[in-house]
Amino acid sequence: MDAALVTDLVNVRYLSGFTGSNAALLVTVDGRVVFATDGRYVDQAATQCPDVERLVSRQLTEVLVATLEDHKPLRFAVETHSLSVDEHGIVAAQVTSRDGWELSSLEQAVERLREVKDADEIEALRTACDMSTQALAGLLAGELLGRTERALARDLEWRMYELGAEAIAFETIVASGPNSAIPHHEPTDRQVAVGDLLKIDFGARHAGYHADCTRTVLVGSGADWQRDIYAAVAAAQRAGVDACVVDTPVADVDAASRDSLASAGYLEWFTTGLGHGVGLQIHEEPLISKRHPGRLRAHTPLTIEPGIYLPGRGGVRIEDTVVVTATGPEVLTHATRDLLVLD
Amino acid sequence: MDAALVTDLVNVRYLSGFTGSNAALLVTVDGRVVFATDGRYVDQAATQCPDVERLVSRQLTEVLVATLEDHKPLRFAVETHSLSVDEHGIVAAQVTSRDGWELSSLEQAVERLREVKDADEIEALRTACDMSTQALAGLLAGELLGRTERALARDLEWRMYELGAEAIAFETIVASGPNSAIPHHEPTDRQVAVGDLLKIDFGARHAGYHADCTRTVLVGSGADWQRDIYAAVAAAQRAGVDACVVDTPVADVDAASRDSLASAGYLEWFTTGLGHGVGLQIHEEPLISKRHPGRLRAHTPLTIEPGIYLPGRGGVRIEDTVVVTATGPEVLTHATRDLLVLD
Repeated sequence: MDAALVTDLVNVRYLSGFTGSNAALLVTVDGRVVFATDGRYVDQAATQCPDVERLVSRQLTEVLVATLEDHKPLRFAVETHSLSVDEHGIVAAQVTSRDGWELSSLEQAVERLREVKDADEIEALRTACDMSTQALAGLLAGELLGRTERALARDLEWRMYELGAEAIAFETIVASGPNSAIPHHEPTDRQVAVGDLLKIDFGARHAGYHADCTRTVLVGSGADWQRDIYAAVAAAQRAGVDACVVDTPVADVDAASRDSLASAGYLEWFTTGLGHGVGLQIHEEPLISKRHPGRLRAHTPLTIEPGIYLPGRGGVRIEDTVVVTATGPEVLTHATRDLLVLD
Repeated sequence: MDAALVTDLVNVRYLSGFTGSNAALLVTVDGRVVFATDGRYVDQAATQCPDVERLVSRQLTEVLVATLEDHKPLRFAVETHSLSVDEHGIVAAQVTSRDGWELSSLEQAVERLREVKDADEIEALRTACDMSTQALAGLLAGELLGRTERALARDLEWRMYELGAEAIAFETIVASGPNSAIPHHEPTDRQVAVGDLLKIDFGARHAGYHADCTRTVLVGSGADWQRDIYAAVAAAQRAGVDACVVDTPVADVDAASRDSLASAGYLEWFTTGLGHGVGLQIHEEPLISKRHPGRLRAHTPLTIEPGIYLPGRGGVRIEDTVVVTATGPEVLTHATRDLLVLD
């Protein structure tokens, strides 16, 4: 293609540094980059993308396409996976009205670039993960028994903010007792009781980058079945992390954890995905699954998060944010994966 | 149209009650409603939409269209304003492969339904607004001087959570001194000082509904120019709220506040929109502007939020969430609009 119109806001941020809620970017093959936003963001854009040609308009895509007015015929690509049908119609009318111009799809080209992170991105992720696990350590050092899921979630979030998080990365999951069997439980007013599995899935956001971590602890004391499923999840999680080596097929990472759960006899109770890329979005490519056709690339951060969920009884998930590096997996979420029994 | 495919998640939630992150809904003119989600949400969907025919699949739109297999030719509508080009392509291939079927746009039909709220929705909004203004009262009763914007924002959010908010409605704005001149300022480590205008734009979310409120106070003592712009904004805000009467052209609400600011000589410093609908999203239709062609309908919640922003010096915004009712505007955000001078 000769020119690409980037309209997905996360992709715009990735390419330009702009963090506002309305913008688009035009990139041409001969190196021209034009950024457009509306009147609210003039100052912010000047600060965040000082080196880029900037336009201000209510009609972002229209002014961007118009900047190519004198351009020779070209192949013009748009992000068809996120651009709405209506917006696409506006761009298409403008593009196809020009002699010899052609409209095509950029597909997920920018998302593919985003999968592999540079040093600054990994540093941001590292900071987000440090804030997260420090906050968890603080929470777990305090009382758990008798507090509600909701209170624990708010406490943990407060700690992340106090440690400098710019936001929480996603809605915190605190799931106790039978609720721990629900993979994506919303915290309730249930009070943590002796014998509960307590599952905490949480993360801080720093400089736009999202940490993602889950730990499950036992409260007061535990039963054998709880220790058994914990051990099975811990082994499967370790196997998944260990598989995060450059050039490994993504499907093999999935298989590593699933084979481990299968040999322990628990595979049928693992009902979610194993993990996903993480960065400017909490869920990014690559999604780890047996259907993924690709291989792991260096400097790709991933989550590895197997679990066992026994409906009505309880569940365990252990999740780390891990970076694939040339020398093997680097875990960014530093918190013990040993079973903690706490009060 | 004969059948509509609803893919916008907020619209799906509005029509079905489902709050998860992946679902679609098919509605036919003869009253059939079919809901689809993926395996993660089977239990949640059963709880949240017990009375609806439910399907589970990875390919939501595909299985939904397939349920109409035996249907006579029909006009099939999709949400072209939010559906991506790629997803639309999949649906279009399926629909147009059937003899006599036609594809059309649902346009923003569901969004138009959402503008007018029922009693339960307004009650949820009322609760969200109460949590918000109670939290503000608590914050303003404490110390302001010397605390950072960021600390005040976190404190206010914490108070909303403590009062039962399920989430904050949007990223809290706390803007002090010269920063108050930035309409959408992100809280920094700047410490609040004597003579600051302190602008706080915030809200709680309850049962999916978003409160939206802004207050600006003076810290320690104020100068005449600060009192002048406060009085001008308060008058313009009052004029806008008073214009929220059933059947008033939306453009007249805009004019009411703008005329007030113009007569005070400050219109050029009001650089944002006057307000917007609010509900399951923080920004909904109707957007209040001179270009809006419609009239206010009863039970429509709106924000009215004029401001004056003097770059480098400071700014004032006063914002309420207001419901248009048959008997006049009802303000849901109960907090004084008088100028407070606090320490």
